[in-house]
Amino acid sequence: MRMDSITWPRDDVQVYEVEQKFRVADTAAVERRLVSLAARFRDPLEQMDRYFAHPCRDFARSDEALRLRRCGAEVMVTWKGPRIDTASKTRLEMELGVAQAEPLPGGPPGGQATVDRWTELLEALGFRRVRDVVKRRRPARVPWQGTEVEVALDSVAGLGDFLELELQAGAGEVPQARACIDALARELGCAESERRSYLELLIAAGR
Amino acid sequence: MRMDSITWPRDDVQVYEVEQKFRVADTAAVERRLVSLAARFRDPLEQMDRYFAHPCRDFARSDEALRLRRCGAEVMVTWKGPRIDTASKTRLEMELGVAQAEPLPGGPPGGQATVDRWTELLEALGFRRVRDVVKRRRPARVPWQGTEVEVALDSVAGLGDFLELELQAGAGEVPQARACIDALARELGCAESERRSYLELLIAAGR
Repeated sequence: MRMDSITWPRDDVQVYEVEQKFRVADTAAVERRLVSLAARFRDPLEQMDRYFAHPCRDFARSDEALRLRRCGAEVMVTWKGPRIDTASKTRLEMELGVAQAEPLPGGPPGGQATVDRWTELLEALGFRRVRDVVKRRRPARVPWQGTEVEVALDSVAGLGDFLELELQAGAGEVPQARACIDALARELGCAESERRSYLELLIAAGR
Repeated sequence: MRMDSITWPRDDVQVYEVEQKFRVADTAAVERRLVSLAARFRDPLEQMDRYFAHPCRDFARSDEALRLRRCGAEVMVTWKGPRIDTASKTRLEMELGVAQAEPLPGGPPGGQATVDRWTELLEALGFRRVRDVVKRRRPARVPWQGTEVEVALDSVAGLGDFLELELQAGAGEVPQARACIDALARELGCAESERRSYLELLIAAGR
């Protein structure tokens, strides 16, 4: 089980996830530029994110999200708080791992069984399934401006290819982290960032 | 990690938890009677249950409950649905295990850290902490009328001692399960059942 990553404000530790996403026309070209910057690619992975609506809070209005994420047999519950920065996708976020659950009778085993069980629990509490986002992700890290930027080349079912760049930053470091990401994006030939989430893009595309 | 126990209605499998609870004046006397029935006691355990209010549903009215249960380092999320039987405490129930979480900075390690992290996640979603129920439980199984009844002798902080008897039953077997539990309770010298939960009793007692 992966360690839980939690980003949550408190007096002693404020950590923000500064993230930008770009639509990619030519994935191979972006990959070549990443390689030329000495990016280290990790194994690709399949992710399934199941998004839920809140029983009484309009997440579209409050700019939050609740999802179950499955990556192989591993399942996490993630809450994403409102964006606190208009240009980047900086958010408060909490992500906690769950234990593997028994399959439903006749249902699939492994991670999907766990997702199904947690879906039942959330539905019993009044949360409603909105949509599943399925993607193949090629994660990498690239050294850039004295730090290491987390990179993901995503191929999203129904949407196409995207590049995501992310840095963790303390409260006072958010502007520098944004500038660092912007410069790397330009270096990779990506100019216009996409602020909408994959979920929002899928909904906009009527998928 | 204990296997998840889930009780949830569907076409192919309906399992109900038929449970009754009794206030106990003389725990030693009940224990002697259980031993004379060849009950097998397991190791005692300390349980902490943290109950939450729903962001927009009145659980007191809907007769539901959501709790985090910690038993040592193990933590589960439990939803208890409405009672479907007035005499017994028969309920729909779902219980799912979570992975161990990283402690908060300066916070306690182990199971309590996991409870604290999940408390944060639930509070971010609008759930509100109601109360913690702390008890020492002596679990046992006793052969009775051709089946095995799950027994718990509970010492609840702020409330005193209780006996709980429980059987799992299919949809058509609930009346027999109730009769079986009632007969065992009489055999153990317990006549009047307590329908209220420990949480309700603590609230009623102003604890």
